[in-house]
Amino acid sequence: MKFTIEKKLDGTLARAGEIETVNGIIKTPAFVTVGTKATVKTLTAEQVRGLGAQVVLANTYHLYLQPGEDIVAQAGGFGKFMDWHGPTMTDSGGFQAFSLGAAFGANVSKVATGDEVEDISAYEGQLAHVTDEGVTFKSHIDGSKHLFTPERSMEIQWKLGADMIFAFDECTSPTAPYEYQQKSLARTYEWAKRSLDAHGKLDTEKKQALFGVIQGGRFKDLREQAARDLGVLNFDGFGIGGSFTKADIGTAVGWVNAVLPEDKPRHLLGIGEPADLFAAVEAGCDLFDCIAPTRMGRHGTLHTADGKINIKNARFVQDFTPIEEGCTCYTCMRHTRAYLAHLFRADEMTAGTLASIHNLHFILRLVEKIRRSILDDTFHDYKQAFLARYKA
Amino acid sequence: MKFTIEKKLDGTLARAGEIETVNGIIKTPAFVTVGTKATVKTLTAEQVRGLGAQVVLANTYHLYLQPGEDIVAQAGGFGKFMDWHGPTMTDSGGFQAFSLGAAFGANVSKVATGDEVEDISAYEGQLAHVTDEGVTFKSHIDGSKHLFTPERSMEIQWKLGADMIFAFDECTSPTAPYEYQQKSLARTYEWAKRSLDAHGKLDTEKKQALFGVIQGGRFKDLREQAARDLGVLNFDGFGIGGSFTKADIGTAVGWVNAVLPEDKPRHLLGIGEPADLFAAVEAGCDLFDCIAPTRMGRHGTLHTADGKINIKNARFVQDFTPIEEGCTCYTCMRHTRAYLAHLFRADEMTAGTLASIHNLHFILRLVEKIRRSILDDTFHDYKQAFLARYKA
Repeated sequence: MKFTIEKKLDGTLARAGEIETVNGIIKTPAFVTVGTKATVKTLTAEQVRGLGAQVVLANTYHLYLQPGEDIVAQAGGFGKFMDWHGPTMTDSGGFQAFSLGAAFGANVSKVATGDEVEDISAYEGQLAHVTDEGVTFKSHIDGSKHLFTPERSMEIQWKLGADMIFAFDECTSPTAPYEYQQKSLARTYEWAKRSLDAHGKLDTEKKQALFGVIQGGRFKDLREQAARDLGVLNFDGFGIGGSFTKADIGTAVGWVNAVLPEDKPRHLLGIGEPADLFAAVEAGCDLFDCIAPTRMGRHGTLHTADGKINIKNARFVQDFTPIEEGCTCYTCMRHTRAYLAHLFRADEMTAGTLASIHNLHFILRLVEKIRRSILDDTFHDYKQAFLARYKA
Repeated sequence: MKFTIEKKLDGTLARAGEIETVNGIIKTPAFVTVGTKATVKTLTAEQVRGLGAQVVLANTYHLYLQPGEDIVAQAGGFGKFMDWHGPTMTDSGGFQAFSLGAAFGANVSKVATGDEVEDISAYEGQLAHVTDEGVTFKSHIDGSKHLFTPERSMEIQWKLGADMIFAFDECTSPTAPYEYQQKSLARTYEWAKRSLDAHGKLDTEKKQALFGVIQGGRFKDLREQAARDLGVLNFDGFGIGGSFTKADIGTAVGWVNAVLPEDKPRHLLGIGEPADLFAAVEAGCDLFDCIAPTRMGRHGTLHTADGKINIKNARFVQDFTPIEEGCTCYTCMRHTRAYLAHLFRADEMTAGTLASIHNLHFILRLVEKIRRSILDDTFHDYKQAFLARYKA
């Protein structure tokens, strides 16, 4: 993997660049399309290609549980398994082991909505059983017990065969207290070194790029310390993990990116709301992945330049205009809001397909426009104009 | 609508022909793809086009209940609503009013498996409330009461705007006694005349072709009488309705087609199993519609030249061959049985999409091959070879 910076935006940490993998080039900043179980939900691989997606990320936790990493390896890796021949990523499995596994089905959000304390069992280790060895968790499918360690995560990700993979980390809640974050960070640092070590033994020809993951919650000193400690290790790039509140995404990410080596790509894990994307790019991030476009789409929530609409709303039943005037996605070129409203009310699966196509198109094009605005020095104008109109 | 016979197969009632509509040509025999609620389940219109589908049939009962025929009319008809610009059909609404409506959610099969008596309430009129005026039924969605009459069916189908529509009929069970079938047939005959009359007043420019529906259960004299009585009326084509047992599809259809005028197309309603298609073509049918390819697909049952397989079966989990070697459908060109098995086990919607594509491709190509075998006089050889291998 090779990373080249084409342009830096004065007065910010934003940059436009290019990641070269054996499976193709990613122009950054880039939105990474999530294909959790080696499929982008409701879409065929051809539809994903048709959207101009550059890179697909699958979840290690999910593929480990079903169908198992050995079957994916036999298929030639998850990209080949799902007929995606462009660049690929897998995550470490950590986040899902803590959120899905620990909570056994109850999802823990990546974005806290305020100061309220979420289900603290995850970071207190009561259900997830975090030790220095790794994390013991229960499968959200059948409740069976499993152990992820840095070594196991590397082995699984090696078999899943993505171009870019992540070191095993502990993903903490933004509301976790300082003492816990500090202790957890020390563990994530040890796990980072163990990940590098284990991966080096598996990947002797350096086929996969390995990203270290920066944690540290909302604490500036911890985030900076993590960036310093991991920044000097032999990683090919960095993930920025953990949950954030809406207000502090840009700030917390900026702390980290001011410290991380400039010549390696930075991936903000699990973030995909428009305002967050602008903030994260400005704070120096190159890659983002998020399930929001497809999950929202399946539930009938659609992006427009004016903000989100819920297509199930009665006012769309006789609205024969496209989701968004001027949108060039497959759905908007061919269908009306009334048709989408009908499909959702009729519980037709094609509703989710058409909505996912629109939302992914919206976010992929947004990040492309952000990239162009860096290249031609119009980022601030574009950000201001977009956010003034888009009601979150 | 114009129907031309290109070739008749000696010694049988089979023929190959062409139906010309304002929205395109249908080469017959043709399989009609079902898009119940103005969408072929799990597929986009582009995927349906990609399959080489010639004509799409939507269900009057479903579109009447949701979103309502007025909204579909505002959209320019169900074809335009769903972005299907080829030939279109709607059914009369009768079958669903009796099966779904009358049974309130419990599906009544089109094909009886033997001599056992099915839920007889439908043809005894206890739940469906059949009178000479029409049929009162309960919505399977919310239990609300509705009335379909021949006049109402014509009005709804006129608004749904298909190229080819069906007269309102009473669909009886194959196990209904002779007396009931006789009484019902007299009613269906009156309804046929009322349908012609009502449609003539709506469609003064003859935009829609109207097909009469032949009923009569398993009784030869009733089937022939229906064909004689309706055959002389001013219909543009004929549907053959009612349920059949596997054994008597060809026979019962043959009775009817021996009597019906030769120069009008014949549509066998709701039939789509390979063996039944061969039998019905041989007995003189030109068109067939069936939900089986997509419904089976969504449940993991896939057609192959050797018969059906259930892809959820454990033996496919590590099978890295396509569903069928040599198949040129999107799914087989790009995916393995192992991938499909994974998607079904993981409850991914894309599983239904890929399976529906394969099954529709299989049936559409089968009927195309049957057509070619009529044109080049190899029908009997092809039928024998296909059925010898295909285990139902």
